[in-house]
Formats: sequence, structure tokens, C-alpha cells
Amino acid sequence: MDTKSDKKDLEVNVPVEEDIFSRNNKIADQNISMLEKHHVHAIDILGSVGSGKTTLVQNLVRHLKNDYRITAIAGDLTTSIDADRIQEEGAPVVQINTGQECHLDATMIQKVLKTLDLEDQDLILVENVGNLICPSAFQVGAHQRIVVVSTTEGPYMVVKHPHTFMEASVLVVNKIDLAGAMEVDLDKLKRDALQIKPDIKVVFTNGRTGEGIPEFIQALNLPKK
Amino acid sequence: MDTKSDKKDLEVNVPVEEDIFSRNNKIADQNISMLEKHHVHAIDILGSVGSGKTTLVQNLVRHLKNDYRITAIAGDLTTSIDADRIQEEGAPVVQINTGQECHLDATMIQKVLKTLDLEDQDLILVENVGNLICPSAFQVGAHQRIVVVSTTEGPYMVVKHPHTFMEASVLVVNKIDLAGAMEVDLDKLKRDALQIKPDIKVVFTNGRTGEGIPEFIQALNLPKK
Repeated sequence: MDTKSDKKDLEVNVPVEEDIFSRNNKIADQNISMLEKHHVHAIDILGSVGSGKTTLVQNLVRHLKNDYRITAIAGDLTTSIDADRIQEEGAPVVQINTGQECHLDATMIQKVLKTLDLEDQDLILVENVGNLICPSAFQVGAHQRIVVVSTTEGPYMVVKHPHTFMEASVLVVNKIDLAGAMEVDLDKLKRDALQIKPDIKVVFTNGRTGEGIPEFIQALNLPKK
Repeated sequence: MDTKSDKKDLEVNVPVEEDIFSRNNKIADQNISMLEKHHVHAIDILGSVGSGKTTLVQNLVRHLKNDYRITAIAGDLTTSIDADRIQEEGAPVVQINTGQECHLDATMIQKVLKTLDLEDQDLILVENVGNLICPSAFQVGAHQRIVVVSTTEGPYMVVKHPHTFMEASVLVVNKIDLAGAMEVDLDKLKRDALQIKPDIKVVFTNGRTGEGIPEFIQALNLPKK
């Protein structure tokens, strides 16, 4: 292949990529409509691998399962470790294995929604693939997006990912018991997030002990049952 | 846009994506040739945000700068925090800001290589964008790939990312001082990695104290000076 044809191909890529996002947004809007028709609230949960997303979902299920009919959707490259852990809490879980794909998208979620009896649901918790970058560009069709960071990810994980926090309603700073050992300043993380998104709610949790979970649930501002 | 044209567009995406990978591999091969012509060794360093990649690069620069002429290339979405930290150790650093792109690729690295006097280099350390998934699919044109994981990422970060470890020569398990608090079994992580890649070298480090850095350097098996 010569340089000229290389360049031509490169130029072709741009509209295709834009098309992926606009198509995805369109399907995400369809998902929202489908959910609202049945009064189901959906939450997209983002965060790096090991930030504690699954433990937080387990906490949510434990606290909310008596008041809300919950289904979890767990995205992962290859394993079902997270789905199994959530299921132990007593909520049905649908596993999506994405292969090498670094995020969930609206089409994957739509396929799952079509298998559910939405009249029999109140709350859908989508645990996205463990990755702080890619899922932020792909709406899944949820009412709100939660970003989970762990203090063990160091002091820069917020400022390094402005796009991820820009569309989040709640930032959960998890593993606060390790903030001291990590020399991470919790107030600084909060200020970083507020600078990116002035109306973001910031809560501090320890998913293992349950510390901060009531404040997290309050911040979600769920539809009253 | 009707459903039929939607479907057609989707079918078009597949060859374009395959083309991206094959084009990238071709440019990565060019990068390797360019480096070898000047006897320069290059290392691609992968890991999640906060795994400790920058601290490890700082350690490498500190230990190796008297024996090797080192340049670092630091990939990040928007900030220059990592580049600044590496520069403090006395190595020149080239910053690549990828915007929203979740990985470096061979074209970005080739652009940097063309600005360097490679006759004046021995070692190039590429710190990839903080992400355990996407960079694994994009060769940058390095002689070896190092994957850094932190014990604080929990017990599943190896088994969840088989593709990332399959092409790595060394796995660095960092922040070993926090393994106890995280209830992470270091031997289990090593076994997980060896199951994916039987000849991977596994080293255990604490980037802050320097523990394990000599073993890490030995595992790199750098060309003798």
C-alpha cells in the first residue's frame, strides 16, 4: 500500500467514527424512552478495574432490594466474577461479556432490556466495563451516570479524566480507609471534581464496611416508591 | 436514517476497524526498524490510572541514567503531570496528549521518534495512557511490553484482562505494601499471569520505597552497555 492510499483511508475513518457516536446516542434515547414508558430508573456505573464498583452495587442491592425491584447488568471483557458477586446479594444479573471491547454501548443494553419484563422492574444498575476512559463516550441509555474512583488510584485520577466526570451526577470516592496510606487528599479530589462539574455530588465510601452508603443512596435521589 | 441503511453502515465498520489494526502494526514495524538501525531499545509500559507507572519510570530513570541515554514518552488524555514528574528525574520527556483517545498508537510514537536524534539514544520508555484494556490492542513499536498492576486494583485485575498480559514480557505487581490491607494474594496474581503467559516474568515492587526495583531492572534484560 502506498502513502497516498494510506492517507485516503485515514480520512475515511473520521465520519465512520462520528457515525458510531450518533448512532449510539440514538439507541440510548430509545432505551430511555423504553424505560420511562415502564417507570424504570436506570443508573450507569463507571470506574476503573478495582475501584469497587461491584462492592458498591452489592451494597445498593442490599439496602434497596426491599423497596425496589432491581436488575443488575454487569459488563466485563471475559469473566462473570462481578455478576456472580452481585447475584449473591439476591438481585437478578445479566452478564454482558464484551470480548476485547472496552465499554458497554446502547445496543448491548437494548438487547438486554428487550429480554426483561420492564413492568416488573423499578431500578436497573448497569455496571460498566472497568475503565475510566472509554465508557464515558458511550451513553448506554441511563437516567444518570455514577463514577466510582478509589483513593488507591492516586491523587490525579479526577483531573486526568475531565470528560468522564462532566456527565456524572455523583462521584463516589471509595476505599477512604486507604486515603491516608495513599497520601490522597479527599478534599482536593472533591474540589477537582467540582471544578469540572460544579453540580456533581461527591460522596465518600468504604464499600467493605458500608461507611457512606446511606449518603451515596441519598445522592442518587431515586424516584420515590 | 432507516433501519436498512443503519445495518449497511454497521457492516462497513468491520473492515475499517481491521484496517486500523493492520495499518498500526505496519507502522509499529517501521518504528522497530528505525530504532534497531540506531541500536535503541524501546519499552511500552501499560497499566491502569494510579497503578504506579510514572513512579516506576522515575525509578528506572534514577537507576539507569548513568548507563543509558534515556528519553521518556508520556501518554495522557489532557494533562502533563506524569511528564513533569519524570523530567524531575533528569530524563528528557516528550508529552503526547491524546484528547479522548484511550491509548497511544504507532503513528503517534513515529511522529515523536522523527523528532529525536536516535544516534543519541539508548533507551526509550513509553508510558502509555492509563488504561488496562485499550493499549493492549495497539502496538507502538517497542521491543517489549511491561504491564504494571497495583495490589489496590483488587484480586481480579489479571484474570479479567487476558489479552493485556498475553503480549507482556514482564508483569510488575506494584504497591505490595498494601497487599495485606487489600487482602490480595500475591502468589495468586502470579499464578493467574503465568496461566495466561507461561514465560512472563513477575516482579513485586513498591515504587515509593524502591523495593523490588533491582529485580524489575534485571527482568527487563536490557541490552548490555
